[in-house]
Amino acid sequence: MDDIRFAVLGTGGIGRRTLEVSQHKDGLTAVAACDRNGVAIDHDGLDVDELLESTEGNIASGPQDDGPDDVATDGGAAAAKADGVKQHGEQAGIVASTQGEPTETPIDDIIAESDAIDAVLLALPNLEHDFIPRVAERFAEADYEGVMIDVLKRSRVIGMLDDREDKLKESGITFVCGAGATPGFLTGAAALAAQSFVEVEAVEIWWGVGLKSGYEDNRGTVREDIAHLDGYDIETAREMSEDEIEALIDEHDGVLEFHDMEHADDVLLERAGICDAEDVHVGGVLDVRSDEKPTTTTVSVTGTTFDGETGTNTFELDDVTSMEANVNGPALGYLKAGVRNNRAGHYGVFGPADLMPGF
Amino acid sequence: MDDIRFAVLGTGGIGRRTLEVSQHKDGLTAVAACDRNGVAIDHDGLDVDELLESTEGNIASGPQDDGPDDVATDGGAAAAKADGVKQHGEQAGIVASTQGEPTETPIDDIIAESDAIDAVLLALPNLEHDFIPRVAERFAEADYEGVMIDVLKRSRVIGMLDDREDKLKESGITFVCGAGATPGFLTGAAALAAQSFVEVEAVEIWWGVGLKSGYEDNRGTVREDIAHLDGYDIETAREMSEDEIEALIDEHDGVLEFHDMEHADDVLLERAGICDAEDVHVGGVLDVRSDEKPTTTTVSVTGTTFDGETGTNTFELDDVTSMEANVNGPALGYLKAGVRNNRAGHYGVFGPADLMPGF
Repeated sequence: MDDIRFAVLGTGGIGRRTLEVSQHKDGLTAVAACDRNGVAIDHDGLDVDELLESTEGNIASGPQDDGPDDVATDGGAAAAKADGVKQHGEQAGIVASTQGEPTETPIDDIIAESDAIDAVLLALPNLEHDFIPRVAERFAEADYEGVMIDVLKRSRVIGMLDDREDKLKESGITFVCGAGATPGFLTGAAALAAQSFVEVEAVEIWWGVGLKSGYEDNRGTVREDIAHLDGYDIETAREMSEDEIEALIDEHDGVLEFHDMEHADDVLLERAGICDAEDVHVGGVLDVRSDEKPTTTTVSVTGTTFDGETGTNTFELDDVTSMEANVNGPALGYLKAGVRNNRAGHYGVFGPADLMPGF
Repeated sequence: MDDIRFAVLGTGGIGRRTLEVSQHKDGLTAVAACDRNGVAIDHDGLDVDELLESTEGNIASGPQDDGPDDVATDGGAAAAKADGVKQHGEQAGIVASTQGEPTETPIDDIIAESDAIDAVLLALPNLEHDFIPRVAERFAEADYEGVMIDVLKRSRVIGMLDDREDKLKESGITFVCGAGATPGFLTGAAALAAQSFVEVEAVEIWWGVGLKSGYEDNRGTVREDIAHLDGYDIETAREMSEDEIEALIDEHDGVLEFHDMEHADDVLLERAGICDAEDVHVGGVLDVRSDEKPTTTTVSVTGTTFDGETGTNTFELDDVTSMEANVNGPALGYLKAGVRNNRAGHYGVFGPADLMPGF
């Protein structure tokens, strides 16, 4: 494949790790990055090392941007924050890099240069549910032709992207949604594991994350996770005081177990024709006090073969693979698949399972 | 995806099972099938049930066609033969179906109708190594525009296809090679499992097959497998008498274990940029006297993450999934992926890993 020039919107954990991982990959050149206050663009390729070093522990964020909405399955932001104390304000983030320029319109600045950008990774966590769909719309309005890819998690966002599919197609955008760890890596694994079967009865996605940094630096994200616990929702989790959260975590000895999370694996597998969304279940265990994963990340796909046997195929990630590795490797893998599709004229909204062998 | 009209060349085990499995799948219509003596074509869709019933235990084959070159990993032919006693001659096979017509030029007859065929599955086992490449060439010479897909296993065939890639591209053919169980399903699993890593050190593919039918009806294929045993090669295996093979199998109590088999997973993963061919190892255990799999089919991918951890991700197939299910489901899955690519103008030779997220 020819070289892919890509941009990263957002330089929190996921954005930073994507830039870092891309340096290990062939055929990927980072040409643009932005955060809330700044933008760095070099069509010959950014100096990623300089950018990462000068912005380490120095993330330009605003009041809304206090981490991803679910650290357990994208982890990157958590790790990035653990690297150092966050700085706020106009001199923080990308503007601290020699390559950065201050701007009040970072996304528009990237859009202005998008003719020379093949793919845009949206590493914009924890904003309103329709934030990523609205950013996609802005690129479409500017007639961007290329790939956009996100690592979003919540099922409801997929529909918001679908609502905009005509606009994306018209512009020539191949939008790959939910392309991190889960949904993403594990959705793809489920789609592949389904290939033994003619009927899929259940997909169980079960993840384990041990937060290296403890949870001290990640209260915001842990709060978001609490919304997934039995008896809690986004509203109640938001209203909890810090002390109440402390108490809850103590009560669980630092280990939070989640069931039936709203993760878009369900709608992404359904749209690829593999099973009904309601047959997909996502859960996992987050240990905020240990570096070790409290459980092994596993995808189990149960189905019936053409010859009438019912069985379960499984996909397991080694406990030593960090969530950062499992988010950012697949995100770039799907980005490459997206570019193949875009160059072939396949536009619209694609999930990870749509980029796998058909079912 | 719009409906895919497909043809099957060869109605031995793999061809028959492909037709059978396709009936469980959406968007696939079998419109043509052929064997050595006959052809059945109906552009509105073959009556697959009638075709399978009337040809059961009744496979038109010639002296060369005594089974796939490696039953252990495509199993289908073995099972088909176990269904009944083979019949030879001009009234056997597809001509026994009310839809079949006798012909001396079955492949040419399909080529003549190929304008209305989106995909051709080559289920032509155990012929000369360059047989499938030569058939592809014939389709290219007739300017066929569509997908061709095989379930070949031996590494050396991939190069023969690559030699013909210009012709295939010119014609508009998307050739998906090695798209059965292994290579195929398990190659794809390895490509996906690699996504945690920035460097892949080893891919171990280990399969288990329990031949339901025992080995009585599959001596030819078992002989081929013996060529993979330590101390044997294709030449020595061909020269063994039936008694010598019996003795060898008795010596092993019916259980043959294979290491470092020539399976194209190696070159297919290398061409997708995932690892060096020499880092891929394929082996397994064939039990010719039991229905149970003697070992669990597993793919293990060991690599290093961007953050310096070395780990192993694994993909396991349930022991109850038959090799037929694991060959024919993925073959049709890759066929669908091939059609997506073909309709987008992606021509040439593709391996399963080329159809997965990029590495």
